[in-house]
Amino acid sequence: MILVTGADGYVGWPTFLALAAAFAPEEVIGVDHFGRRQWVQEVGGRSLVPIESMQGRLLAAREAGYSNLRFVRQDLRDAAAADALVRERRPRAIVHLAAQPSAPYAHKDGAHAAFTQDNNLATTRNLLWAVHAAGLDESTHLVVTTTMGIYGPAPIDVPEGPMDVTVGGRPVQLPFPALATSWYHMGKAMDALNLQLAAYVWRQTVTELRTAVVLGTTTALTREHPALRTRVDADFFFGVVPHRFLAQAVAGVPLTVYGEGGQRKPFIALSDAVASLTAAVGQDVMARRGLRIYNQTTDVIGIEDLAAKVAAAARGVGLDAVVQHRPNPRVEDEHHQLTVRRQGFLNDLLAGEPLGLEDALEQSAADLVAFRDDIRRLGPVLGITAAT
Amino acid sequence: MILVTGADGYVGWPTFLALAAAFAPEEVIGVDHFGRRQWVQEVGGRSLVPIESMQGRLLAAREAGYSNLRFVRQDLRDAAAADALVRERRPRAIVHLAAQPSAPYAHKDGAHAAFTQDNNLATTRNLLWAVHAAGLDESTHLVVTTTMGIYGPAPIDVPEGPMDVTVGGRPVQLPFPALATSWYHMGKAMDALNLQLAAYVWRQTVTELRTAVVLGTTTALTREHPALRTRVDADFFFGVVPHRFLAQAVAGVPLTVYGEGGQRKPFIALSDAVASLTAAVGQDVMARRGLRIYNQTTDVIGIEDLAAKVAAAARGVGLDAVVQHRPNPRVEDEHHQLTVRRQGFLNDLLAGEPLGLEDALEQSAADLVAFRDDIRRLGPVLGITAAT
Repeated sequence: MILVTGADGYVGWPTFLALAAAFAPEEVIGVDHFGRRQWVQEVGGRSLVPIESMQGRLLAAREAGYSNLRFVRQDLRDAAAADALVRERRPRAIVHLAAQPSAPYAHKDGAHAAFTQDNNLATTRNLLWAVHAAGLDESTHLVVTTTMGIYGPAPIDVPEGPMDVTVGGRPVQLPFPALATSWYHMGKAMDALNLQLAAYVWRQTVTELRTAVVLGTTTALTREHPALRTRVDADFFFGVVPHRFLAQAVAGVPLTVYGEGGQRKPFIALSDAVASLTAAVGQDVMARRGLRIYNQTTDVIGIEDLAAKVAAAARGVGLDAVVQHRPNPRVEDEHHQLTVRRQGFLNDLLAGEPLGLEDALEQSAADLVAFRDDIRRLGPVLGITAAT
Repeated sequence: MILVTGADGYVGWPTFLALAAAFAPEEVIGVDHFGRRQWVQEVGGRSLVPIESMQGRLLAAREAGYSNLRFVRQDLRDAAAADALVRERRPRAIVHLAAQPSAPYAHKDGAHAAFTQDNNLATTRNLLWAVHAAGLDESTHLVVTTTMGIYGPAPIDVPEGPMDVTVGGRPVQLPFPALATSWYHMGKAMDALNLQLAAYVWRQTVTELRTAVVLGTTTALTREHPALRTRVDADFFFGVVPHRFLAQAVAGVPLTVYGEGGQRKPFIALSDAVASLTAAVGQDVMARRGLRIYNQTTDVIGIEDLAAKVAAAARGVGLDAVVQHRPNPRVEDEHHQLTVRRQGFLNDLLAGEPLGLEDALEQSAADLVAFRDDIRRLGPVLGITAAT
């Protein structure tokens, strides 16, 4: 059976569905403690599209023919609960997506930074120890998402896994060092260190997907029924840049680019993220053991270019979208030209045709237009009003 | 004024004294919550030499003429307490030594691994945020000890700070990536990441000393009065290898080397560690800002060689010491030849003549002989009996 943590989240819910569809009749157990709903509420946010409670989601899934989904409400910071879950269910794979995923939320103050690092580290570490304590080091495949934000303003082409460098004339392989520039991203770099450690000391089999910014409002499976929708956040704290752009375009206000928007960031469509997580679970990796790192992205482009693509997608569905620049409040190199390798990821985990950034934006714009009145009303709440 | 965290610890107490002596009449405030005493008790250990309570220590210090020592009992995992301390006292320097420092203790089980990483990360992170919240980013010098264990089985000569590498024919500087092989050491690698982050986003001035194994029973100041002694642990969990060897030599049992003992480890005498921390506080670094990393070691030698040096020191004080090999229970490369650069450390922070490993072992052997009967009785408790 397969365990999915963070199964109520933006990526977690569609992944939960996709795994159940791909591996039926194998049981897929989702775990969540609804942290994301709570955090978004705390900052005054709301999903751009209506979403059901987990109960409503499961009911709709059952009606849609899924019979192998199970859900457990659990806070995985509770080590005893994590231990019991793994010991009793003995998952062959754990897709670990549970995390507080927002950098601005972590940056609010010391308490939020601490909460974010402690929460994310504890859940991952508890799963590693639970697998070890249950004697499953040799039989459970851990599929974990961290973030490409670990790379920060990387001065070199970022490899997937160890980097080949020359030191004093001698070639050596070393892990890529963490260069993250936020408390959230540095916390994920810490998570990655514990994955590296568990793979080293216990020979656990770990696939770490260093995730890009995930965007898009639907997957093939969430489109099957309104109650199967996943959340789409666009507020300052939990809204990723492409979703904020989309919300602005739909609300009829200019798309806000901070600074020059020259810095390149990695992106991936929700459908592609979910497909690659499903492919990771399908891989026969137990003979491999140890840690394999992938860069989970299809497109690395500048923020300015992203805004142009969102505007084009919006115009494609009849919206009038313009781009506006504002001063950049962040400490970052606006001209940083991130380049990352992703051939391993594309070959191993996205062998089918990826949806890609542009199609995901077109689908999403078309999808969100149906919620135009709602999103216009939400605008001021989400801080996506026009500049005054 | 100067703040010292972990002021009741093995390195902390002599550092507390040394700072008070070096910078009098400037106030030096020690902080501790006596965690070390509690953890050693938990594992059934006991200091090889009798130590006073903090109350007794402070009384003896006052009698010895120290008038600028203050002590605050505080658990620095409490963010509000850390905030208040820094905001009210506005230290010009914080020497941060507070930590659960044992790798075997952290490795006991998931709960101890979690406690160690969470405890150590929280205290450091709380101090970084406290300095920031108090508006002292530009005026407080953070002197923090992490560990050379971050380097793990480093395949290259380990630099002090960024490493110069060539990637695809292009020279770049990158931080040395964490290769730690224990939950404790990886936790310290995480601490180091938060130091790097605070130095990056807030331009805090941080001196990070990556500490070697610290050994030796006394410093010039702790020798002034029996009540000024610092603790010396030799149990399996909190005893460093040289202290276990010393205890074995004094107890009259063979010195136990696990495996072949070929792997090289870094060491530093307690006196030298304390002198370098004092020198760090004396540096004029506020113009520098950002992070400076030192490798805090004077000697990098193999365990087998260390045992031979302890045996020689023991024979120098009339003890009969032999070395015995046992199978190695750890996952480690027994032939790993760690080489670390330390010229920056020696030049900047140990410009006086260092005591060095051999003299520290001789002093310690001579010192511990006075406690021979006690240590013989303690032997079975500390697991330093002869192999059967």
